[in-house]
Amino acid sequence: MHGSPALHEDVRPLEFLIGAWRGEGAGRYPTINPFTYGEEVRFWHIGRPFLVYSQATWSLDDGSPMHGETGFWRPKPEARLEVVLAHPSGVVEVEEGSLAVDRGAIRIELATITVGQTTTAKPVDALTRSFRGEGDSLSYSVGMAAVGQTLQHHLGAELRRVGG
Amino acid sequence: MHGSPALHEDVRPLEFLIGAWRGEGAGRYPTINPFTYGEEVRFWHIGRPFLVYSQATWSLDDGSPMHGETGFWRPKPEARLEVVLAHPSGVVEVEEGSLAVDRGAIRIELATITVGQTTTAKPVDALTRSFRGEGDSLSYSVGMAAVGQTLQHHLGAELRRVGG
Repeated sequence: MHGSPALHEDVRPLEFLIGAWRGEGAGRYPTINPFTYGEEVRFWHIGRPFLVYSQATWSLDDGSPMHGETGFWRPKPEARLEVVLAHPSGVVEVEEGSLAVDRGAIRIELATITVGQTTTAKPVDALTRSFRGEGDSLSYSVGMAAVGQTLQHHLGAELRRVGG
Repeated sequence: MHGSPALHEDVRPLEFLIGAWRGEGAGRYPTINPFTYGEEVRFWHIGRPFLVYSQATWSLDDGSPMHGETGFWRPKPEARLEVVLAHPSGVVEVEEGSLAVDRGAIRIELATITVGQTTTAKPVDALTRSFRGEGDSLSYSVGMAAVGQTLQHHLGAELRRVGG
Protein backbone atom coordinates (compact mmCIF):
# COMPACT_ATOMS: atom_id res chain seq x y z
CA MET A 1 0.00 0.00 0.00
CA HIS A 2 2.68 2.56 0.86
CA GLY A 3 5.61 2.45 -1.58
CA SER A 4 6.84 5.80 -2.90
CA PRO A 5 4.12 7.44 -4.93
CA ALA A 6 4.96 10.35 -7.21
CA LEU A 7 4.42 13.80 -5.79
CA HIS A 8 0.96 15.09 -6.73
CA GLU A 9 1.28 18.04 -9.09
CA ASP A 10 -0.83 20.28 -6.79
CA VAL A 11 1.74 19.82 -4.02
CA ARG A 12 4.68 20.98 -6.12
CA PRO A 13 4.62 24.55 -4.62
CA LEU A 14 5.14 23.01 -1.14
CA GLU A 15 7.87 20.57 -2.18
CA PHE A 16 10.45 22.65 -0.29
CA LEU A 17 8.80 21.69 3.00
CA ILE A 18 8.92 17.91 2.53
CA GLY A 19 11.21 16.25 5.04
CA ALA A 20 12.11 16.66 8.69
CA TRP A 21 13.12 19.91 10.39
CA ARG A 22 14.59 20.39 13.83
CA GLY A 23 15.52 23.36 15.98
CA GLU A 24 14.61 25.56 18.87
CA GLY A 25 11.96 28.14 19.58
CA ALA A 26 10.78 30.63 22.15
CA GLY A 27 7.31 31.51 23.35
CA ARG A 28 5.69 34.27 25.33
CA TYR A 29 2.22 35.45 26.22
CA PRO A 30 0.90 37.93 28.77
CA THR A 31 -0.64 35.16 30.87
CA ILE A 32 2.41 32.88 31.15
CA ASN A 33 6.15 32.96 31.78
CA PRO A 34 8.36 33.12 28.67
CA PHE A 35 9.72 29.71 27.67
CA THR A 36 11.97 27.99 25.16
CA TYR A 37 11.55 24.62 23.47
CA GLY A 38 13.07 22.06 21.16
CA GLU A 39 11.04 21.19 18.09
CA GLU A 40 10.75 18.72 15.26
CA VAL A 41 8.48 19.30 12.27
CA ARG A 42 7.81 16.74 9.56
CA PHE A 43 6.03 17.14 6.23
CA TRP A 44 5.41 14.16 3.94
CA HIS A 45 3.15 13.16 1.09
CA ILE A 46 1.27 10.05 0.00
CA GLY A 47 0.77 10.95 -3.65
CA ARG A 48 -2.41 12.90 -2.97
CA PRO A 49 -3.02 16.67 -3.29
CA PHE A 50 -1.94 17.51 0.26
CA LEU A 51 1.00 17.23 2.63
CA VAL A 52 0.72 15.47 5.97
CA TYR A 53 2.12 17.57 8.82
CA SER A 54 3.27 16.53 12.25
CA GLN A 55 4.99 18.67 14.86
CA ALA A 56 6.28 18.02 18.37
CA THR A 57 8.01 20.24 20.90
CA TRP A 58 9.88 19.32 24.06
CA SER A 59 11.48 20.89 27.09
CA LEU A 60 15.12 21.91 26.58
CA ASP A 61 15.66 21.11 30.27
CA ASP A 62 14.65 17.47 30.42
CA GLY A 63 13.39 16.51 26.96
CA SER A 64 9.84 15.92 28.20
CA PRO A 65 7.13 16.43 25.57
CA MET A 66 5.38 19.82 25.51
CA HIS A 67 3.11 20.49 22.56
CA GLY A 68 2.20 18.73 19.35
CA GLU A 69 0.12 19.34 16.27
CA THR A 70 -0.96 17.20 13.39
CA GLY A 71 -2.89 17.85 10.20
CA PHE A 72 -2.90 18.44 6.49
CA TRP A 73 -1.72 21.20 4.13
CA ARG A 74 -3.79 21.63 0.98
CA PRO A 75 -2.32 23.86 -1.77
CA LYS A 76 -4.97 25.38 -4.00
CA PRO A 77 -4.94 27.33 -7.28
CA GLU A 78 -3.67 30.91 -7.38
CA ALA A 79 -1.09 30.27 -4.64
CA ARG A 80 -3.76 29.75 -1.99
CA LEU A 81 -3.18 27.37 0.88
CA GLU A 82 -5.63 25.62 3.23
CA VAL A 83 -4.42 24.00 6.45
CA VAL A 84 -6.39 21.87 8.92
CA LEU A 85 -4.83 21.07 12.28
CA ALA A 86 -5.62 19.27 15.54
CA HIS A 87 -3.82 19.99 18.83
CA PRO A 88 -3.62 17.68 21.86
CA SER A 89 -4.76 20.65 23.95
CA GLY A 90 -8.25 20.06 22.51
CA VAL A 91 -8.15 22.65 19.72
CA VAL A 92 -8.77 22.32 16.00
CA GLU A 93 -7.98 25.00 13.43
CA VAL A 94 -8.83 25.78 9.86
CA GLU A 95 -6.25 28.20 8.50
CA GLU A 96 -6.14 29.76 5.06
CA GLY A 97 -3.72 32.04 3.32
CA SER A 98 -1.13 32.26 0.60
CA LEU A 99 2.23 30.85 -0.39
CA ALA A 100 4.94 32.36 -2.55
CA VAL A 101 7.91 30.52 -4.01
CA ASP A 102 10.72 32.61 -5.47
CA ARG A 103 14.10 31.17 -6.53
CA GLY A 104 13.96 28.34 -3.99
CA ALA A 105 12.72 30.49 -1.11
CA ILE A 106 9.21 29.98 0.25
CA ARG A 107 6.95 32.35 2.16
CA ILE A 108 3.66 31.30 3.69
CA GLU A 109 1.08 33.46 5.46
CA LEU A 110 -1.87 31.82 7.23
CA ALA A 111 -4.67 32.90 9.54
CA THR A 112 -7.50 30.96 11.14
CA ILE A 113 -10.94 31.13 9.58
CA THR A 114 -12.31 28.70 12.19
CA VAL A 115 -11.11 27.59 15.61
CA GLY A 116 -12.94 24.83 17.48
CA GLN A 117 -12.25 23.40 20.90
CA THR A 118 -13.39 20.81 23.36
CA THR A 119 -15.35 21.66 26.50
CA THR A 120 -12.27 21.52 28.74
CA ALA A 121 -9.76 23.25 26.40
CA LYS A 122 -8.45 26.74 27.09
CA PRO A 123 -10.24 29.23 24.81
CA VAL A 124 -8.35 30.16 21.64
CA ASP A 125 -9.94 32.80 19.42
CA ALA A 126 -7.52 33.15 16.50
CA LEU A 127 -4.07 32.11 15.31
CA THR A 128 -1.78 33.38 12.57
CA ARG A 129 1.28 31.61 11.15
CA SER A 130 4.09 32.91 8.99
CA PHE A 131 6.77 30.65 7.53
CA ARG A 132 10.00 31.57 5.76
CA GLY A 133 12.09 28.85 4.16
CA GLU A 134 15.27 28.87 2.11
CA GLY A 135 17.91 26.21 1.58
CA ASP A 136 18.11 24.16 4.75
CA SER A 137 16.44 26.78 6.96
CA LEU A 138 12.82 27.13 7.98
CA SER A 139 11.58 29.71 10.46
CA TYR A 140 8.11 30.51 11.61
CA SER A 141 6.18 32.80 13.91
CA VAL A 142 2.77 32.18 15.43
CA GLY A 143 0.39 34.89 16.61
CA MET A 144 -2.44 34.07 18.98
CA ALA A 145 -5.55 35.65 20.44
CA ALA A 146 -6.59 33.54 23.43
CA VAL A 147 -7.86 33.64 27.02
CA GLY A 148 -9.15 37.19 26.50
CA GLN A 149 -5.91 38.64 25.04
CA THR A 150 -5.64 40.39 21.67
CA LEU A 151 -3.84 38.81 18.71
CA GLN A 152 -0.10 39.08 19.33
CA HIS A 153 3.18 37.29 18.85
CA HIS A 154 3.26 33.98 20.74
CA LEU A 155 5.87 31.64 19.25
CA GLY A 156 8.91 31.83 17.01
CA ALA A 157 11.40 29.14 16.00
CA GLU A 158 14.36 28.53 13.70
CA LEU A 159 14.60 25.02 12.24
CA ARG A 160 17.21 23.24 10.13
CA ARG A 161 16.54 20.45 7.64
CA VAL A 162 17.55 17.12 9.16
CA GLY A 163 16.38 14.60 6.58
CA GLY A 164 13.48 13.26 4.58
CA MET B 1 13.50 12.89 23.77
CA HIS B 2 11.31 9.91 22.80
CA GLY B 3 12.13 6.81 24.88
CA SER B 4 9.19 4.91 26.38
CA PRO B 5 7.41 7.10 28.90
CA ALA B 6 4.97 5.55 31.36
CA LEU B 7 1.32 5.65 30.38
CA HIS B 8 -0.35 8.73 31.85
CA GLU B 9 -2.92 7.68 34.46
CA ASP B 10 -5.70 9.62 32.69
CA VAL B 11 -5.21 7.48 29.58
CA ARG B 12 -5.64 4.16 31.42
CA PRO B 13 -9.32 3.80 30.30
CA LEU B 14 -8.17 3.90 26.66
CA GLU B 15 -5.22 1.52 27.10
CA PHE B 16 -7.11 -1.15 25.15
CA LEU B 17 -6.82 0.96 21.98
CA ILE B 18 -3.03 1.43 22.03
CA GLY B 19 -1.34 -0.28 19.11
CA ALA B 20 -2.07 -0.84 15.44
CA TRP B 21 -5.29 -2.21 13.98
CA ARG B 22 -5.97 -3.37 10.45
CA GLY B 23 -9.00 -4.57 8.54
CA GLU B 24 -11.66 -3.72 6.02
CA GLY B 25 -14.68 -1.49 5.93
CA ALA B 26 -17.62 -0.48 3.79
CA GLY B 27 -19.15 2.90 3.12
CA ARG B 28 -22.35 4.23 1.63
CA TYR B 29 -24.13 7.53 1.29
CA PRO B 30 -27.09 8.67 -0.81
CA THR B 31 -24.87 10.87 -2.97
CA ILE B 32 -22.19 8.29 -3.86
CA ASN B 33 -21.79 4.67 -4.93
CA PRO B 34 -21.21 2.14 -2.11
CA PHE B 35 -17.55 1.28 -1.64
CA THR B 36 -15.21 -0.90 0.39
CA TYR B 37 -11.77 -0.09 1.74
CA GLY B 38 -8.74 -1.40 3.60
CA GLU B 39 -7.82 0.42 6.78
CA GLU B 40 -5.09 0.83 9.34
CA VAL B 41 -5.65 2.63 12.62
CA ARG B 42 -2.90 3.45 15.11
CA PHE B 43 -3.18 4.77 18.66
CA TRP B 44 -0.06 5.66 20.67
CA HIS B 45 0.92 7.72 23.67
CA ILE B 46 3.80 9.98 24.66
CA GLY B 47 3.30 9.94 28.43
CA ARG B 48 0.81 12.80 28.33
CA PRO B 49 -2.95 12.72 29.12
CA PHE B 50 -4.02 11.91 25.56
CA LEU B 51 -3.58 9.33 22.82
CA VAL B 52 -2.31 10.24 19.39
CA TYR B 53 -4.50 8.82 16.62
CA SER B 54 -3.73 8.20 12.98
CA GLN B 55 -5.87 6.44 10.42
CA ALA B 56 -5.48 5.64 6.75
CA THR B 57 -7.69 3.84 4.26
CA TRP B 58 -6.91 2.50 0.81
CA SER B 59 -8.57 0.98 -2.18
CA LEU B 60 -8.94 -2.81 -2.02
CA ASP B 61 -8.55 -2.84 -5.81
CA ASP B 62 -5.14 -1.24 -6.22
CA GLY B 63 -3.96 -0.18 -2.74
CA SER B 64 -4.09 3.51 -3.60
CA PRO B 65 -4.67 5.82 -0.62
CA MET B 66 -8.23 6.97 -0.03
CA HIS B 67 -8.89 8.77 3.25
CA GLY B 68 -6.91 9.64 6.35
CA GLU B 69 -7.46 11.25 9.71
CA THR B 70 -5.17 12.37 12.45
CA GLY B 71 -5.72 13.83 15.90
CA PHE B 72 -5.85 13.35 19.63
CA TRP B 73 -8.09 11.48 22.09
CA ARG B 74 -8.45 13.11 25.51
CA PRO B 75 -10.07 11.01 28.27
CA LYS B 76 -11.71 13.14 30.96
CA PRO B 77 -13.22 12.43 34.38
CA GLU B 78 -16.52 10.58 34.71
CA ALA B 79 -15.81 8.47 31.62
CA ARG B 80 -16.04 11.45 29.27
CA LEU B 81 -13.96 11.56 26.11
CA GLU B 82 -12.91 14.49 23.92
CA VAL B 83 -11.52 13.91 20.41
CA VAL B 84 -10.04 16.46 17.99
CA LEU B 85 -9.42 15.41 14.40
CA ALA B 86 -8.18 16.81 11.11
CA HIS B 87 -9.00 15.27 7.71
CA PRO B 88 -7.07 15.76 4.46
CA SER B 89 -10.42 16.60 2.83
CA GLY B 90 -10.19 19.96 4.63
CA VAL B 91 -12.38 19.15 7.63
CA VAL B 92 -11.71 19.44 11.35
CA GLU B 93 -13.91 17.95 14.06
CA VAL B 94 -14.37 18.30 17.78
CA GLU B 95 -16.17 15.21 19.06
CA GLU B 96 -17.27 14.51 22.60
CA GLY B 97 -18.92 11.56 24.27
CA SER B 98 -18.42 8.69 26.65
CA LEU B 99 -16.40 5.55 27.08
CA ALA B 100 -17.21 2.40 29.03
CA VAL B 101 -14.77 -0.36 29.93
CA ASP B 102 -16.19 -3.62 31.25
CA ARG B 103 -14.11 -6.78 31.74
CA GLY B 104 -11.71 -5.94 28.95
CA ALA B 105 -14.33 -4.75 26.48
CA ILE B 106 -14.55 -1.10 25.51
CA ARG B 107 -17.46 0.92 24.14
CA ILE B 108 -17.13 4.48 22.92
CA GLU B 109 -19.84 6.84 21.71
CA LEU B 110 -18.90 10.19 20.16
CA ALA B 111 -20.66 13.00 18.33
CA THR B 112 -19.38 16.26 16.88
CA ILE B 113 -19.90 19.44 18.86
CA THR B 114 -18.05 21.46 16.19
CA VAL B 115 -17.18 20.83 12.55
CA GLY B 116 -14.97 23.26 10.65
CA GLN B 117 -13.89 23.18 7.05
CA THR B 118 -11.83 24.98 4.48
CA THR B 119 -13.35 27.08 1.71
CA THR B 120 -13.00 24.32 -0.89
CA ALA B 121 -14.03 21.34 1.30
CA LYS B 122 -17.34 19.53 0.82
CA PRO B 123 -19.77 20.66 3.55
CA VAL B 124 -20.02 18.31 6.55
CA ASP B 125 -22.60 19.20 9.20
CA ALA B 126 -22.19 16.47 11.83
CA LEU B 127 -20.50 13.14 12.48
CA THR B 128 -21.07 10.39 15.03
CA ARG B 129 -18.69 7.55 15.87
CA SER B 130 -19.29 4.33 17.81
CA PHE B 131 -16.47 1.93 18.69
CA ARG B 132 -16.67 -1.59 20.14
CA GLY B 133 -13.48 -3.33 21.19
CA GLU B 134 -12.75 -6.67 22.82
CA GLY B 135 -9.65 -8.88 22.74
CA ASP B 136 -8.02 -8.40 19.37
CA SER B 137 -11.11 -6.96 17.68
CA LEU B 138 -12.14 -3.36 17.15
CA SER B 139 -15.16 -2.32 15.13
CA TYR B 140 -16.63 1.07 14.48
CA SER B 141 -19.44 2.82 12.69
CA VAL B 142 -19.54 6.42 11.54
CA GLY B 143 -22.70 8.43 10.94
CA MET B 144 -22.60 11.59 8.86
CA ALA B 145 -24.81 14.54 7.96
CA ALA B 146 -23.27 16.21 4.91
CA VAL B 147 -24.00 17.80 1.53
CA GLY B 148 -27.62 18.44 2.58
CA GLN B 149 -28.36 14.88 3.77
CA THR B 150 -29.64 13.95 7.25
CA LEU B 151 -27.44 12.15 9.79
CA GLN B 152 -27.20 8.51 8.74
CA HIS B 153 -24.90 5.53 8.64
CA HIS B 154 -21.88 6.20 6.42
CA LEU B 155 -19.00 3.86 7.34
CA GLY B 156 -18.45 0.61 9.21
CA ALA B 157 -15.31 -1.47 9.61
CA GLU B 158 -13.97 -4.51 11.46
CA LEU B 159 -10.34 -4.32 12.51
CA ARG B 160 -7.90 -6.79 14.09
CA ARG B 161 -4.98 -5.94 16.34
CA VAL B 162 -1.74 -6.23 14.37
CA GLY B 163 0.87 -4.94 16.79
CA GLY B 164 2.02 -2.05 18.96
